[in-house]
Amino acid sequence: VKVAELATPALVVDGPAFDRNLARMADARPGPALRPHVKAHKSTALAARQVAIGHRHFTCATPREALGMAAAGLGEDLLVANEVLDPARLTALAGAARAGARITVAVDSDATVDAAAAAGLTEVLVDVDIGLPRCGCAPDDAGRLADRARRAGLSVRGVMGYEGHLMMVLDRADQRARVAAAVDVLLAAHADVGGEVISSGGTGTYDLHDRVTEVQAGSYALMDTHYGQLGLPFEPALRTVATVLSARPRWAVCDAGLKTFGMDHGNPAMDDGFGALRFCSDEHATFVPGPQGVRPGDRVLLRPAHVDPTIAYHEQLWVADGPGLDAEVLDRWPVDLRGW
Amino acid sequence: VKVAELATPALVVDGPAFDRNLARMADARPGPALRPHVKAHKSTALAARQVAIGHRHFTCATPREALGMAAAGLGEDLLVANEVLDPARLTALAGAARAGARITVAVDSDATVDAAAAAGLTEVLVDVDIGLPRCGCAPDDAGRLADRARRAGLSVRGVMGYEGHLMMVLDRADQRARVAAAVDVLLAAHADVGGEVISSGGTGTYDLHDRVTEVQAGSYALMDTHYGQLGLPFEPALRTVATVLSARPRWAVCDAGLKTFGMDHGNPAMDDGFGALRFCSDEHATFVPGPQGVRPGDRVLLRPAHVDPTIAYHEQLWVADGPGLDAEVLDRWPVDLRGW
Repeated sequence: VKVAELATPALVVDGPAFDRNLARMADARPGPALRPHVKAHKSTALAARQVAIGHRHFTCATPREALGMAAAGLGEDLLVANEVLDPARLTALAGAARAGARITVAVDSDATVDAAAAAGLTEVLVDVDIGLPRCGCAPDDAGRLADRARRAGLSVRGVMGYEGHLMMVLDRADQRARVAAAVDVLLAAHADVGGEVISSGGTGTYDLHDRVTEVQAGSYALMDTHYGQLGLPFEPALRTVATVLSARPRWAVCDAGLKTFGMDHGNPAMDDGFGALRFCSDEHATFVPGPQGVRPGDRVLLRPAHVDPTIAYHEQLWVADGPGLDAEVLDRWPVDLRGW
Repeated sequence: VKVAELATPALVVDGPAFDRNLARMADARPGPALRPHVKAHKSTALAARQVAIGHRHFTCATPREALGMAAAGLGEDLLVANEVLDPARLTALAGAARAGARITVAVDSDATVDAAAAAGLTEVLVDVDIGLPRCGCAPDDAGRLADRARRAGLSVRGVMGYEGHLMMVLDRADQRARVAAAVDVLLAAHADVGGEVISSGGTGTYDLHDRVTEVQAGSYALMDTHYGQLGLPFEPALRTVATVLSARPRWAVCDAGLKTFGMDHGNPAMDDGFGALRFCSDEHATFVPGPQGVRPGDRVLLRPAHVDPTIAYHEQLWVADGPGLDAEVLDRWPVDLRGW
């Protein structure tokens, strides 16, 4: 089966480009120096490829991601890098840990420490605010939280902090300096907390971290047009194949729309040679075709602007042996970690 | 179970507001004068409520929506208001039709006519461009396409045209005039095509159509903040309940983000009293709480900006007996028509 023969809309991974992305990251951050983030792809089959290249510790955003990874035998060291307060989900995580997975949850408050302990979890990591206004405790509160966790019988593995506000700083020197300042904050908190783990970073800053023990990157494997602005050594490896449903002299319409693409980073892009995107509707993208024009039934390729919320709409990733419509489809990776 | 006790993030329908929305629409466009659009909610359980109030003919955007509606016994008259070229899906639709559903597909080109005929479908409707640059044939081509369809053995039920570009015209007199001009185009095409169906409209123009046989509205049932700008007599009936995961002096974070909300119309809104939204991340919304503040574990409510791509992320809608956190959960409607 060729990419052009898939039922559409469908997400297609350019297998060789994906392999090169994994190899480049594994060169830069081998083995446990990278803790790949599962939220970007939500696929245990894709995660298994990350294991095969040496990364056996994973970052998860939701309990369901962690439970699914554990159930798939990928639970050697799972960090839920998010605060969880739901007793039922925490209890399920504790059950997976008792069944043999290693599961660590992030905590940033008395409530999250107490909930983890009450559910029978055994390992936590203190999530520290290093500049992004999201989760994470005040840096000077990290030591106190670690003490509280240890008093509650929890093992405190260390700290994490995500400098998400610095991912898209386009000036590298500026980005480097600001990342270093954020890591200063994280290391000061770590001095108060202790533990062997200092976890930080993402795809946009993966090569600016020489003082942490691991980087949490996810997008690097498949990339998107947003991260594509940064000039990183990772190639666009994810496309959507769509069918032209309608063609008029001045525009055409394909069957990939607002339920195919996460839209927070703006419109997807028509892939090279397929024209220019105008706008998306629920089930359509209207575009201006390239000079060769298109006819109903033709296939086109698009590149998503944001990989994570795009994949979360889909049931599977199709893996092909190249980037184009005539590439051979080699494999199907279920997106089996959706939801919460 | 109260709304505040649901596992989060979760979509919650304010049942009484939903019922009032359905009643108001059924007053304005009773029975077959409305062909509710399934794409907005993708739920056969919700569609069954639309049947109960008198609308037994439905609009679908995807083959899976139509097949699911037919399988649920809601297939009295299903219009796939979209061009379909996939032979396997058209054949499945033809099979559902032979099994007793009435299934009509939109056509706007020789290719779509020929594909419908080749798959064994029996009924089509000519989709006419009435001003939105999306699907739909040139108006003066509609008669020729109808002739081609009839020569291919298809029954041509009439015409449809969607004035989606006019949904959000805020000046009602201007909107009325522009809708009338679009309907002029549709009626001229209908004169060439024939058939008993003239289908058009949406939630933003449902009351501006006295010359069509039916209106295709979907958002009216649950609404969103985007349509809320129009001052329509439909109430916000869909909210997301989320849990506060982290609370700092100047912001708090809840567990509803870019995989919870369709973002093409912008950020969701914090529901009244819950503060002001700042930004969304994959699994989080950062917001400034109201004066009473929030603590980790508190629940908050948000209102989506665009109902259709929001619901497409979720597995179910929870139906409650009111809009608030203390409302009683009465029912669960699976979102069983996702995908293509």
